[in-house]
Amino acid sequence: MSLNLRDELVNKSIEESKFKYAGRNFKEEDTVIEVAGVKIGGDNFTVFAGPCSVESKDQIVDLAGKVRLAGCQVLRGGAFKPRTSPHTFQGLGDKGIRYLVDAKEVTGLPVVSEIMDPSQLELFKDVDILQIGAKNMQNFALLKAVGKTNKPVLLKRGFSNTLEELLFSAEYIMSEGNHKVILCERGIRTFETSMRNTFDITAIALLRQLTHLPVIADPSHSTGESKLVSPVCKAAVAAGCQGLLIETHDEPQSALCDGFQAITIEELKELLPKLEELRRIL
Amino acid sequence: MSLNLRDELVNKSIEESKFKYAGRNFKEEDTVIEVAGVKIGGDNFTVFAGPCSVESKDQIVDLAGKVRLAGCQVLRGGAFKPRTSPHTFQGLGDKGIRYLVDAKEVTGLPVVSEIMDPSQLELFKDVDILQIGAKNMQNFALLKAVGKTNKPVLLKRGFSNTLEELLFSAEYIMSEGNHKVILCERGIRTFETSMRNTFDITAIALLRQLTHLPVIADPSHSTGESKLVSPVCKAAVAAGCQGLLIETHDEPQSALCDGFQAITIEELKELLPKLEELRRIL
Amino acid sequence: MSLNLRDELVNKSIEESKFKYAGRNFKEEDTVIEVAGVKIGGDNFTVFAGPCSVESKDQIVDLAGKVRLAGCQVLRGGAFKPRTSPHTFQGLGDKGIRYLVDAKEVTGLPVVSEIMDPSQLELFKDVDILQIGAKNMQNFALLKAVGKTNKPVLLKRGFSNTLEELLFSAEYIMSEGNHKVILCERGIRTFETSMRNTFDITAIALLRQLTHLPVIADPSHSTGESKLVSPVCKAAVAAGCQGLLIETHDEPQSALCDGFQAITIEELKELLPKLEELRRIL
Amino acid sequence: MSLNLRDELVNKSIEESKFKYAGRNFKEEDTVIEVAGVKIGGDNFTVFAGPCSVESKDQIVDLAGKVRLAGCQVLRGGAFKPRTSPHTFQGLGDKGIRYLVDAKEVTGLPVVSEIMDPSQLELFKDVDILQIGAKNMQNFALLKAVGKTNKPVLLKRGFSNTLEELLFSAEYIMSEGNHKVILCERGIRTFETSMRNTFDITAIALLRQLTHLPVIADPSHSTGESKLVSPVCKAAVAAGCQGLLIETHDEPQSALCDGFQAITIEELKELLPKLEELRRIL
Repeated sequence: MSLNLRDELVNKSIEESKFKYAGRNFKEEDTVIEVAGVKIGGDNFTVFAGPCSVESKDQIVDLAGKVRLAGCQVLRGGAFKPRTSPHTFQGLGDKGIRYLVDAKEVTGLPVVSEIMDPSQLELFKDVDILQIGAKNMQNFALLKAVGKTNKPVLLKRGFSNTLEELLFSAEYIMSEGNHKVILCERGIRTFETSMRNTFDITAIALLRQLTHLPVIADPSHSTGESKLVSPVCKAAVAAGCQGLLIETHDEPQSALCDGFQAITIEELKELLPKLEELRRIL
Repeated sequence: MSLNLRDELVNKSIEESKFKYAGRNFKEEDTVIEVAGVKIGGDNFTVFAGPCSVESKDQIVDLAGKVRLAGCQVLRGGAFKPRTSPHTFQGLGDKGIRYLVDAKEVTGLPVVSEIMDPSQLELFKDVDILQIGAKNMQNFALLKAVGKTNKPVLLKRGFSNTLEELLFSAEYIMSEGNHKVILCERGIRTFETSMRNTFDITAIALLRQLTHLPVIADPSHSTGESKLVSPVCKAAVAAGCQGLLIETHDEPQSALCDGFQAITIEELKELLPKLEELRRIL
Repeated sequence: MSLNLRDELVNKSIEESKFKYAGRNFKEEDTVIEVAGVKIGGDNFTVFAGPCSVESKDQIVDLAGKVRLAGCQVLRGGAFKPRTSPHTFQGLGDKGIRYLVDAKEVTGLPVVSEIMDPSQLELFKDVDILQIGAKNMQNFALLKAVGKTNKPVLLKRGFSNTLEELLFSAEYIMSEGNHKVILCERGIRTFETSMRNTFDITAIALLRQLTHLPVIADPSHSTGESKLVSPVCKAAVAAGCQGLLIETHDEPQSALCDGFQAITIEELKELLPKLEELRRIL
Repeated sequence: MSLNLRDELVNKSIEESKFKYAGRNFKEEDTVIEVAGVKIGGDNFTVFAGPCSVESKDQIVDLAGKVRLAGCQVLRGGAFKPRTSPHTFQGLGDKGIRYLVDAKEVTGLPVVSEIMDPSQLELFKDVDILQIGAKNMQNFALLKAVGKTNKPVLLKRGFSNTLEELLFSAEYIMSEGNHKVILCERGIRTFETSMRNTFDITAIALLRQLTHLPVIADPSHSTGESKLVSPVCKAAVAAGCQGLLIETHDEPQSALCDGFQAITIEELKELLPKLEELRRIL
C-alpha cells in the first residue's frame, strides 16, 4: 500500500551526507564569495539590480549608473531570455552581453546574466556571475559545465522544484570543483492565480539552516507585480536572506519584457535604506 | 480553445464590486475590532497565543498566565480538533471550552477557539472570538451561522483556497450582518514536502491592499516546525500583518497534538520584543 | 533536517490498520449498496445523471424522464449550491428538494442531492442518497451526522485532498455505524489552468485496490468543459470506476449554473452504450 | 486589483494563431511520422518499450528481442540519466548508446533515448528518435538544436508545465524546421503523495483536440508503481492517446534505476492485446 499522510512526512530526518558539499555538515560557517571587490554571503548583504532585459547600450549604461548610485552592488541584465514562446522577444543575444560588459566598464559594477547553454561560456568570459535560470535548474549538462569554471554561479530555484532538488543541483556544480554557488528563491508555481508565483518565504529560513551557501531572494518574479515587491523584499530580509535580485527599470511601462514587475529607481532608493535598518535590528 | 498562459492571467483586473463588503472600495480605512478591551486591526498588533489543544484545566490556566505575562493579548486553545482521522485525539470537547473560559476568568485574556458546527454556538457563548478553521473555510452553513452572531470571527484561509475565495468566505459572514472578520494566512498546500505547508507571504501584502479587514498570520501551521516559527513571524510582520497566531506549549515534546510546531514560553518572550522593534521601523 | 526527496516518499508502506473500516484488510470483497432497487458497487455500473441545479419543477421532472430513458439509474440535482460567492445563485433550497422528490415519484428513479448542514437531515428524508460535496469533505460534524443515518452517502473528494484524507473522511462516516459510503473522484486543483480541475485517473485505480467501497467518477466538475466529458468518462471506466456522476442539461447554454460543463441528453445517449461495450471487454 | 476567480479563467478563448505550427489551425489532419518503417500518429498505435536504463549489452539486446516479440514497435533505453542527485547512477553514457544501437541492429527495432545536450547530437546519429526529458522541456537551446535535425523528437511534458507551455516548446522545435514532434504526457507534480506523479488524463483528450501532432502517454513515470501501470495504460488509450511509453524490465527488482515502476515482459504480453481490443471499439 502506498498512501502517506502528508503531515507525517514532515520532519522525517534524512542522512545529512546526502548533500556532500552544500550542507552545513560539510562546512559549518557561511561561505563568502568575492567578485570584483563585492562580497556575497556571510554577514554581507548584496543587492543585484537592473532590467529584465538589456534593451540597448544607452539603456543599460544609463541604468547601471543609477543602480550604482542607489547603492546596489551588482548589475543584472538579461541578454538571452528563456521565453515560453519562440514567437516573442528573445533578448539581444551576443549584443546584449557586449552592452552589459560596457556598462560594467563604465560603472565598475560586476555583472550577472543568464547563460542558457554550455556553448555560450566563451561569450560570457567577461560576465562576472553566471545565472542559471529557473527553467534550467535541472539542466544537468549546463550545471556540470558551469561547475568546471571558477566563476560564481547564481542558481535560481525551479518554479516547481523542492529545496532538496535545489541543493542537489548545487551539488552538481560543486561536484565539478566550483563551490561558488549562490542560491536564489524566486517563487514557486501553485494553484493560486492572484500572483505570478508564490514566494516561499520559509525556504529562505530553511535554506539558511541547511546550507552554508549564500541565499538570496528574487521578489520580482515571485510577485509579478511592482506594488508587491517592496513588502516581499522586507519579508525576505526579515527571514534571513543575504541579498536581493530586483528588476529595476527607468520606464517600467515601456519595458520590452516583464515591465509590470519592475520597480523604478526612485522606489529602489526609498527601499534600500529601510532594508538596511531592518538588517541592523535582526 | 481553452488554453491560458498562466503568466498572462496575472494582473487581470476584476470588478471591485465583487467584494461588496470586504473590499477597500466598500470601506477605505482599516477596520478595528474591539473585544474585551483588546483592539485588533488598524495600527494595532495582536498576538494570539496558547496551545494547540486544551489538555486539562491546570494546563490551560497555567499557560494562560504565562502567555499573558509574555505580553500576548488573546489566549487560543482548541477544544474541538478537526483531525484528519477519527481514530486520533479529537480534543476535550465541551470540557475544553469550560477550561478555556476558566483560564479567561483567571487571567482576563479574551479567548479564541475553533467552532465546527452551528449547533455549538450556545456552547461557545463565553468564547470571545469564534475561529473558523482552514478545513471549514468553505463550510457556508457555518459561515452564515457565525455571521448571524455579533462575535468577532477569526477566518483561516483554507490550505488550497485562493485569496479571492477567502474574501468571498468573509463576504458570506458579512452578508449576514457581522462585519467583525479577522483574516488569517496559515500556509497553503503545494508540491513541497520539506515543510508542512508553504506560507504565502505575498498574501499578507496583497490582502492588506485589497481589504480593510485585519490580516494576521499563523506561522505554526504553515511551517510545522518550531525552529522555523521565529523567522516566519518576523517576515510576516515585515510584510504588514497586524497580528500573529502562535502555538505555544510548556513542554512541546509531550503535547497531545502538533507539539513539534509549538514554541516555548521562553522563545515567545525573546521573540515578541524583536517583533516590536521591527514594527517601529516599518 | 527536514528535507525529503519526493520520489522516495512514494511506495512507503503504511499500516493497513489505519483504515479500520474502509480498507480491504477490513473487508476483502467489494461492498454493494442497494437503494430503491439500484445496486452500486461490485460488478454493477451506475450512472448518476441530471442537472447541476434543480431550476423548476417542470425542468427536473422532464429531465428525470429523459435521463431515465437514456438508461441512467440515479437522478442527481442540486438544491443547495455551495457557491464560492454569496452574491451568486444559491439554488432553490427547500423547494429544490421538493421538486427533486416529485421527479423521483414520477420516474421511480432514486435521487441524490448535496446536503450542507446536519440541520437539513429532516428536509432530506425522501432523498435517497446524501451527497457530501468537495468543499465539505472535511466538515467532520457533517460527516458524523450522516454517519448516524442509514442512507447511502456519496462522498466527493475535496479538490485538494489526498486519497488518504478521503479514506479517513469515509472512516468518520463509517465509525458512526453507516458503512454505505460511495467514493467519488472529481478532479483536483493543480497549477494547470487550461481545465477546471485535473482529473486524477490514477486515484480510481488506486482506490479500487485499497478499498472495498464503490468508486465512481465525476467528469463534469473535473474537466469543466462538455467536449472533454466523453473521453474522460471512457478513461474512468477503463481505469475501473464503478459508476459516473454526469451533469446533463436540456439546454446547457441557458443553465443557471455550470452550463458549460453539462452534456446534452443526446450526447448521453450516444455515450452510454459505448461505455457498456468498454466494460464488457475489461 | 489582481484577483481572479480560478473557475472563471477556464474556457477563456485564446488566439489560435499563438501556436503557429502545432495547432490544428495550421494543419487540420493528424501528422503521421515514419521512422524505420514504423508509423507514429494518425490512426496508428505505437508502443515504445524497454528498460529505464541500458545496463549492459546483453541486457538490452536480450530485452529488445523480447520487447519485439511482445509486439512493440520501438525500443527505449536510457544512456544518460538526468538524476536529481549527482551522487547516484548516471547511466552508461556513450557505451549505453552503443549497446542500444547494437540492440537495434539485432532486432530491427528503431530506438529512442534521451539527449541532454546539443553537443551529444553526433553521438546520437544512429538513434532514431531523440527524447527530450521532462526536466529539459524548457531547455530552449536543446529544443532549437534538435529542431535543426530531421530526426523525430519525443517531447515529454515537464512535471509542472501547462499544456500551453508544452505546445510552445513544440513550437521551438518546429520553428527551426523540424515538424516531427511527438508529445508525451507523463504525469504532473501535485500535492498528492500517494503516487509519484498525477497522470493528467484530460491532457490527452485536450491535446488531441488542439494539435495535429501525435500524443502518447508514459504511465510508468506518472504512477511510479508497476501495479498501477496497466489501468492507466487502458485509461490513456480510452482517452485517445496514439501510443504508450512503457518501462519494461526482466527483473524489475534488480533494475539499476526505477525498478518499482517497470512491468515484466509477461505483464506486457497480457496487456497489449487488451489495449488492441479497446482501440477497436473506440
